[in-house]
Amino acid sequence: MAILNSTTNGTAPHPAELDASKLIVTKAELKPIPPLESLVFGETKTDHMLVINYAPGTGWSAPEIKPYGPLSLDPMSSCFQYCPNVFEGMKAYIGPNGEPRLFRPKDNMERLARSAARVALPPFDPKELLVLIKELIKIESRWIPKLPGYSLYIRPTIIGTRPALGVAASDSACIYVIVTPAGPYFRDATKGISLLAVGESVRSWPGGTGGHKLGLNYAPGFLPQRIASKQGYDQVLWLLGEEERVTEVGAMNFFLVVKREDGDVDLITPPLDGTILPGLTRASTLALAEAHSAGKITLPGVPASVKLHTHERPLTMREIDALSTEGRVLEVFGVGTAVVVAPVSRIGWAGKDIVLPVQKQGLGPIGSGMWKMIVDIQTGKVPFEDWSVVCD
Amino acid sequence: MAILNSTTNGTAPHPAELDASKLIVTKAELKPIPPLESLVFGETKTDHMLVINYAPGTGWSAPEIKPYGPLSLDPMSSCFQYCPNVFEGMKAYIGPNGEPRLFRPKDNMERLARSAARVALPPFDPKELLVLIKELIKIESRWIPKLPGYSLYIRPTIIGTRPALGVAASDSACIYVIVTPAGPYFRDATKGISLLAVGESVRSWPGGTGGHKLGLNYAPGFLPQRIASKQGYDQVLWLLGEEERVTEVGAMNFFLVVKREDGDVDLITPPLDGTILPGLTRASTLALAEAHSAGKITLPGVPASVKLHTHERPLTMREIDALSTEGRVLEVFGVGTAVVVAPVSRIGWAGKDIVLPVQKQGLGPIGSGMWKMIVDIQTGKVPFEDWSVVCD
Repeated sequence: MAILNSTTNGTAPHPAELDASKLIVTKAELKPIPPLESLVFGETKTDHMLVINYAPGTGWSAPEIKPYGPLSLDPMSSCFQYCPNVFEGMKAYIGPNGEPRLFRPKDNMERLARSAARVALPPFDPKELLVLIKELIKIESRWIPKLPGYSLYIRPTIIGTRPALGVAASDSACIYVIVTPAGPYFRDATKGISLLAVGESVRSWPGGTGGHKLGLNYAPGFLPQRIASKQGYDQVLWLLGEEERVTEVGAMNFFLVVKREDGDVDLITPPLDGTILPGLTRASTLALAEAHSAGKITLPGVPASVKLHTHERPLTMREIDALSTEGRVLEVFGVGTAVVVAPVSRIGWAGKDIVLPVQKQGLGPIGSGMWKMIVDIQTGKVPFEDWSVVCD
Repeated sequence: MAILNSTTNGTAPHPAELDASKLIVTKAELKPIPPLESLVFGETKTDHMLVINYAPGTGWSAPEIKPYGPLSLDPMSSCFQYCPNVFEGMKAYIGPNGEPRLFRPKDNMERLARSAARVALPPFDPKELLVLIKELIKIESRWIPKLPGYSLYIRPTIIGTRPALGVAASDSACIYVIVTPAGPYFRDATKGISLLAVGESVRSWPGGTGGHKLGLNYAPGFLPQRIASKQGYDQVLWLLGEEERVTEVGAMNFFLVVKREDGDVDLITPPLDGTILPGLTRASTLALAEAHSAGKITLPGVPASVKLHTHERPLTMREIDALSTEGRVLEVFGVGTAVVVAPVSRIGWAGKDIVLPVQKQGLGPIGSGMWKMIVDIQTGKVPFEDWSVVCD
């Protein structure tokens, strides 16, 4: 409990900033670590969690790392009623010297701060939160799987905790961070993922919240996802508008790889127009494609002579269909923190299936090179800019 | 804990239906009832709450009415992460003989079931839930204020409680119902509410979820609401599209009342096209206007000779501005469970204020007649169809 500063008559005290130096650690009794082959994404609970509460007047509480356990909240809490809830997806890896590493964590923290601002949650210092997350990862480091393709998934979450029913911004909040060991997100990714293009239900729209990582962007997709599953598709490909523009795939960003006449390839992804999540794996994919084309790196399996031309521009189903018919589509993949890069094998649209090239190992040449390069950077095998960050 | 039925090999047992006859009541120590003048909407907690949990396999638990208190939930719970959370707003009143009454509660229950289905929550029998809510209201009846304009606000809520991070429909849920004594929603309603018309942020969209009462429809409005407040407006008037169609007002449905040359009036409200909440007060307002025009009832203060012609049709800001300039606008009001009917005094739009007629008492002749009629029906003073339902 923060002690209120004495203040001059009637003026409010300064609410306390988020301060990592105030961290209190309470160690838990350690759980047995289940075998990796039994892991289902997002189901395993580890030993500890990080919790920080914000109350009006007092501000951010002393951060606590404490035994993993339930949250206790008033039934009127804003998080249940009006959903000002935001989150991030990050991963921790074990580096070559056994050290825990994060991937571009500052970008996650800054996006989280933007998400919180979008739903009017109290502001916090992203740098301080990152210091605390590093502490949590060090304490939970025995949970980071060492197998390739595995990692410790990190879920920073902020929920509104104002305990009142009036429709208003939440003046109280709880930041909590939990972690869970994770293997490959899709069990059958080598077969490629099938997508059902859906335009009747709309995930996001201009002036909406699709450009932020808000919990509320996800529940409306559950029903379309169930319909897609019943029709034999793995995920929904979200369309927008009469021109049927492609936006996102389930919870991934969409990439189309097209052969060019000059032997190079075009790498096309929809633009960040506010309807699409500014994914970190999306940004990394674009940056690595450009680094490959500039000769700064060579994506594994992709000849250095083949340039990857990146395009952030609107992409319609009609265009994808036409390119596929012309035999110019090299591959389609989705990217995201949970999947890294996942191949797409077919897209159900306009009553037919657009069948896409899928290789034996699942990913095509570009997707596969991209996957290997990203994982090598994440696990500290290949240095690239300041993307891989050691928890120290 | 329900006992699983023995079943033939491998088949799942039938999950239990929601069953009001299994109700377990645990009485709380009673709190003192605070003075009515100190009430702030949605802040007072009463003695009891109703809770029912759904788990896959076992189904709905035995309903419990128990002391009001916090919910304890796993931090991975779907309600925090992906927001499959739905709610209703209802009110209980004390009737002429001291009996607790509800207003059109079946309609609330059916809308709640539709909301739950939209975010893929487990289904439940709305009739059974209504039986349980009546029991809760009887137990909490000492909390129903007896002053005119006051009531006991009821908040049925369903949250997704699946304790896992995979992006998927919640196969677990918690229905809970809390109540809170409420006075007039706006303190200064006699002055009329001011609205800022906002088109850059969009509340709802064709193919979106604005036609359902989902918690997630509300948080995106907090930031625009804060901006409106800073500019001196009480609420946001949500616009849609380039033609600037009016959709909703804060959390109310919008009504425009226009003088006709024949001495009658037009009552215009946007249509239920999926972007607008199908409000029960909206439906009641339309039905009472039609009943008045048909001579079945007479709205207090409205001559029986004046017909109210109802129109559910798109309404643009340009049209409202033009009608206002021509002096044809009689009044504008918002309707909803919390406010009943609230007068609108001005709308900030296109850099100016459209100033609307407001009477001394706030509401104009139609809004005022409508408010009186609805409150008289709600409190059982005037019978109308089967709208007022006694908790027995």
